[in-house]
Amino acid sequence: MVSKLRFSANINTFNACADRYVLGGYGKRLNTDELISAAQKVDDLTGVELVGKWHVNDDNVEQIRRQVTDAGFDVTCVTPDIWASGKWGWGSFTSNDPKIRREAINEVKKSMEWAKQLNCEVIDLWFGQDGFDYPLQADYPKAWSLLIEGVAECADHVPEVKIVVEYKPKEPRTHCFVATVGKTIFLLEKVNKPNVGAMIDVGHALMGYENAAESAALLQYFSKKLFYMHFNDNWRYWDDDMTVGSVHTIETLELLYWLDHLDYQGWYALDIFPYREDGIKAANESIRWIKGLFGVMQRISRKRIAEVIASGDAMAMSALMREAFLD
Amino acid sequence: MVSKLRFSANINTFNACADRYVLGGYGKRLNTDELISAAQKVDDLTGVELVGKWHVNDDNVEQIRRQVTDAGFDVTCVTPDIWASGKWGWGSFTSNDPKIRREAINEVKKSMEWAKQLNCEVIDLWFGQDGFDYPLQADYPKAWSLLIEGVAECADHVPEVKIVVEYKPKEPRTHCFVATVGKTIFLLEKVNKPNVGAMIDVGHALMGYENAAESAALLQYFSKKLFYMHFNDNWRYWDDDMTVGSVHTIETLELLYWLDHLDYQGWYALDIFPYREDGIKAANESIRWIKGLFGVMQRISRKRIAEVIASGDAMAMSALMREAFLD
Amino acid sequence: MVSKLRFSANINTFNACADRYVLGGYGKRLNTDELISAAQKVDDLTGVELVGKWHVNDDNVEQIRRQVTDAGFDVTCVTPDIWASGKWGWGSFTSNDPKIRREAINEVKKSMEWAKQLNCEVIDLWFGQDGFDYPLQADYPKAWSLLIEGVAECADHVPEVKIVVEYKPKEPRTHCFVATVGKTIFLLEKVNKPNVGAMIDVGHALMGYENAAESAALLQYFSKKLFYMHFNDNWRYWDDDMTVGSVHTIETLELLYWLDHLDYQGWYALDIFPYREDGIKAANESIRWIKGLFGVMQRISRKRIAEVIASGDAMAMSALMREAFLD
Amino acid sequence: MVSKLRFSANINTFNACADRYVLGGYGKRLNTDELISAAQKVDDLTGVELVGKWHVNDDNVEQIRRQVTDAGFDVTCVTPDIWASGKWGWGSFTSNDPKIRREAINEVKKSMEWAKQLNCEVIDLWFGQDGFDYPLQADYPKAWSLLIEGVAECADHVPEVKIVVEYKPKEPRTHCFVATVGKTIFLLEKVNKPNVGAMIDVGHALMGYENAAESAALLQYFSKKLFYMHFNDNWRYWDDDMTVGSVHTIETLELLYWLDHLDYQGWYALDIFPYREDGIKAANESIRWIKGLFGVMQRISRKRIAEVIASGDAMAMSALMREAFLD
Repeated sequence: MVSKLRFSANINTFNACADRYVLGGYGKRLNTDELISAAQKVDDLTGVELVGKWHVNDDNVEQIRRQVTDAGFDVTCVTPDIWASGKWGWGSFTSNDPKIRREAINEVKKSMEWAKQLNCEVIDLWFGQDGFDYPLQADYPKAWSLLIEGVAECADHVPEVKIVVEYKPKEPRTHCFVATVGKTIFLLEKVNKPNVGAMIDVGHALMGYENAAESAALLQYFSKKLFYMHFNDNWRYWDDDMTVGSVHTIETLELLYWLDHLDYQGWYALDIFPYREDGIKAANESIRWIKGLFGVMQRISRKRIAEVIASGDAMAMSALMREAFLD
Repeated sequence: MVSKLRFSANINTFNACADRYVLGGYGKRLNTDELISAAQKVDDLTGVELVGKWHVNDDNVEQIRRQVTDAGFDVTCVTPDIWASGKWGWGSFTSNDPKIRREAINEVKKSMEWAKQLNCEVIDLWFGQDGFDYPLQADYPKAWSLLIEGVAECADHVPEVKIVVEYKPKEPRTHCFVATVGKTIFLLEKVNKPNVGAMIDVGHALMGYENAAESAALLQYFSKKLFYMHFNDNWRYWDDDMTVGSVHTIETLELLYWLDHLDYQGWYALDIFPYREDGIKAANESIRWIKGLFGVMQRISRKRIAEVIASGDAMAMSALMREAFLD
Repeated sequence: MVSKLRFSANINTFNACADRYVLGGYGKRLNTDELISAAQKVDDLTGVELVGKWHVNDDNVEQIRRQVTDAGFDVTCVTPDIWASGKWGWGSFTSNDPKIRREAINEVKKSMEWAKQLNCEVIDLWFGQDGFDYPLQADYPKAWSLLIEGVAECADHVPEVKIVVEYKPKEPRTHCFVATVGKTIFLLEKVNKPNVGAMIDVGHALMGYENAAESAALLQYFSKKLFYMHFNDNWRYWDDDMTVGSVHTIETLELLYWLDHLDYQGWYALDIFPYREDGIKAANESIRWIKGLFGVMQRISRKRIAEVIASGDAMAMSALMREAFLD
Repeated sequence: MVSKLRFSANINTFNACADRYVLGGYGKRLNTDELISAAQKVDDLTGVELVGKWHVNDDNVEQIRRQVTDAGFDVTCVTPDIWASGKWGWGSFTSNDPKIRREAINEVKKSMEWAKQLNCEVIDLWFGQDGFDYPLQADYPKAWSLLIEGVAECADHVPEVKIVVEYKPKEPRTHCFVATVGKTIFLLEKVNKPNVGAMIDVGHALMGYENAAESAALLQYFSKKLFYMHFNDNWRYWDDDMTVGSVHTIETLELLYWLDHLDYQGWYALDIFPYREDGIKAANESIRWIKGLFGVMQRISRKRIAEVIASGDAMAMSALMREAFLD
């Protein structure tokens, strides 16, 4: 049943993507209305992610709720913006400035409130600016204490909304504190709240030399803490945010097998940056790859995959993958 | 007080190092007597590490104890060999074969007994063969469950001997399960025994894009679980096991500052592979770099380093490092 | 004689740096006048780099010449902008669109003319957008043929201005064609013009696992083709554009030794992105590190460095570096 | 016509593989007779590679010729051993010791003579030990001059035997001089002999962040210098020497397309290290993946691949790959 897979995408997927050289972006800038319209052109897309302040705020939350619902979408995640302006540059929850820290926590709480109003289950805590660039620049115990306290405080604010911590090894800081699946689990255990879990962004896992399937297993098998997934692909050294299936064929299949096997219940959301590609096509391709790989898994059967894994025999795996992809 | 630093090295440091191309090694093979003699030629070395079965066994443990003591050394660590023969190739604690798993656990228990007899506080659990090489080759929940159970069982065997888990992202498997500081903390928390902690091998941290100082802070500040340190250096992508100070000058200084600041009480042990270098010179150089960098830290003063860190000002850090190294 | 080192910096060093998350930049946007004023606050800076169209154009070239001269600077390099707007996104010289290719070549020729008028010896050809993001996206023979032809055509346009090709493994494309020192030499040999050489950006070399000193040797020793240098530092996996000396102490010293030894005559230019740092401080620190390391080299003496290199003895190197940095 | 592909493998593929931890190897050690017998069990294998001195020497060359011929194989490559014993540890052609240099050159010449007697067209010059481990350890101009002279001298020794230079970024040295395709082309141009070309080892290209298809294009399109290919796969950061198709599905397809398109005439040879796998199965899997991917290429047709490449449209590529692998 591929039908069980529910697909979402950040509506920014359809906007012009920029990088540090082409700050104006490679494509056309769209407004929120146009972004939602674009999302409607993607097959099988039934959810959208919004960014706090960018797309939703106190004034427009009810209007956005109606607009997104009318367009046929669930809001699957609200991401508080604690990383996209200069003031967050030296950290959000871990800033040395207590005013910035307070502002960041309030930003997160706001997003939780908006999420609740939007019937959205999840907000995404991505600490991209919390880290360091140079050696001897960070007070590690202090930073981690602030992260733990801050997340716990937010968790209590709207307990019925889930917080998912999104880890990433680097960028925009050269080193992010919440870098790997293991450090994420450490944070979750210290915070210890039922509504605080994790998301895996596949590309961030690849950057960290993780096998995303193993990362999912650690989070989900041992504590049912895998609440959300971001799909994309890259060349391993950097968060290239490419479309799904463009590089890692077998590993993506493995991940889909394990998500299914571990009874992952969350959304299959896209987090891609189609800098030079059409966003609608890029989302369509990504979803088609996920569905196609899921279909391959069903065709060769979960049972045979399970047998290959149980055997630990890499050459049996190789033969099964040939059958899956080449025959 | 540099004098507080206690230095150790695996006696294999002084043996011929081999790699997969030069299996016979680049230098001369020595026996245990010769290795201990070589260790005596290293200034400031007061500890040695031994490998179970290679250097110590049921028959020679008392003789080795006397020999090492007479040579003026403490035994600082015994490392059970659960990774250096073909039978461990598909895993030790996580092997699919229950007989191999039992053998591995027994090997560890033996090393704990020998450690106790040698007045050695620490044994080193390095799961180099526990992982996977290919996608779809490992049953992650099963493997991690076996790791947790196995370590817990060992911990109870000789509670007065400490087990330190040594993480490493890869090699000899292309992916090791216990890969990063975060996954190590996950393992420690699941095992939850007072005598089970971690070691940081600096090179393994570098391979994983960790800042070893941050890794030390996570282990030590939050739960006093940093029991041991392995020093070396590398070019970041691989465990080159080079002498200390040969690449990462400032980061090594940062690590020494934090170990001191976090009140790390363990040994400063070397884990280097001087393939083409003389082992005695390589150990001497490594210790001299650690002492030299520690001296630099004292000269510029802990207080000023603390101020730079508290400021988060990378350019103040840069100026302080210029003063430290160039003036 | 540290005095022989001539320092330059792109005037954008002093502007707000942006990345793909903080498109508005971390600091304050300045105009060209303010950027030149900022440059004057950097000790020992006697050269500036300009970007074509951004800072210099047909209308203002004479005015800029006077303004820069009056401020006490040489213009050391003009960089044509063939990478900073959406239209270059699919390549400049290698675009599939012949109109874009023509426009790019014209942009380069314009910059050569401006360089001549500014008494500037060098223009910088950086092909950041010429490459590919996905597999099966590029026609390699066609792309390389276009690169060769295009560079040759430009070279003939103003033969008294030198073109330096600046290689980089990736970013903004996930793969740039002109990625490494070796591919750069291939391009130079195919172009085969006296006024076409290379620059090494130290960070780009580090990203490609090059030792920049070896890269300099290949270019300079065998064909006197090293015309320019960009200094910065990074953590090896990405072009972090950090200040000089912040990570690679010994390698930077090695590079300075070889530039001196190979009789490199060009500028020591900075190419840093001080996202969260003050640009003036960042430039000052970078220059002070270069001067400081050059001073260390002189203090321990070129002769002893030459002896260590000739011996190939890494432990003698280690001892010499301890003496250089720790004593 | 898959039939045009000619497959070879080093007969060591079938021997126990060792690494620096398991020096005795993971499997069973076989003698040359047994290795040749094992090779016969691999479907479609019609060529074998031999290592000088290991498998062939002055005394047994004629016997080996008969034995290999009788077993139904061509000898496709002889690899002189200038990297597998301690004496080569500080370099072969670039050793500081002129006696070692002379010995290395003689070893290569011997292999050329044996190749000729074996009707083998190619010998493989892999300079794994020629490089450096530490900064300030190598005299780059001297080393490269020695490489150029040495290769040229060998080339003249038996002009009818082709020398293929095999590049690799690192291992066993932390940095090899002949590291990338670009540096290889530099070497070929300096040597400038008709019988000196290159091989691409796919895994070595991946380690260096090369797209092997582009590397092939540079060598073959511009100077017909791609004489040989080594196939394998890895996780990008290290030469894991895994079986073909186990990680990089699309990139391997791309490479096969370009080899065909560039009219590559050489062997499709395997260079894998099946540490924990059965060598015969590993070779069979590798060849089946190459044939299978080649078959996929034919099924979707060269014409459509060419169109996708010409368009530069990554989403058209994505759709075509879905059709190729998932439908």
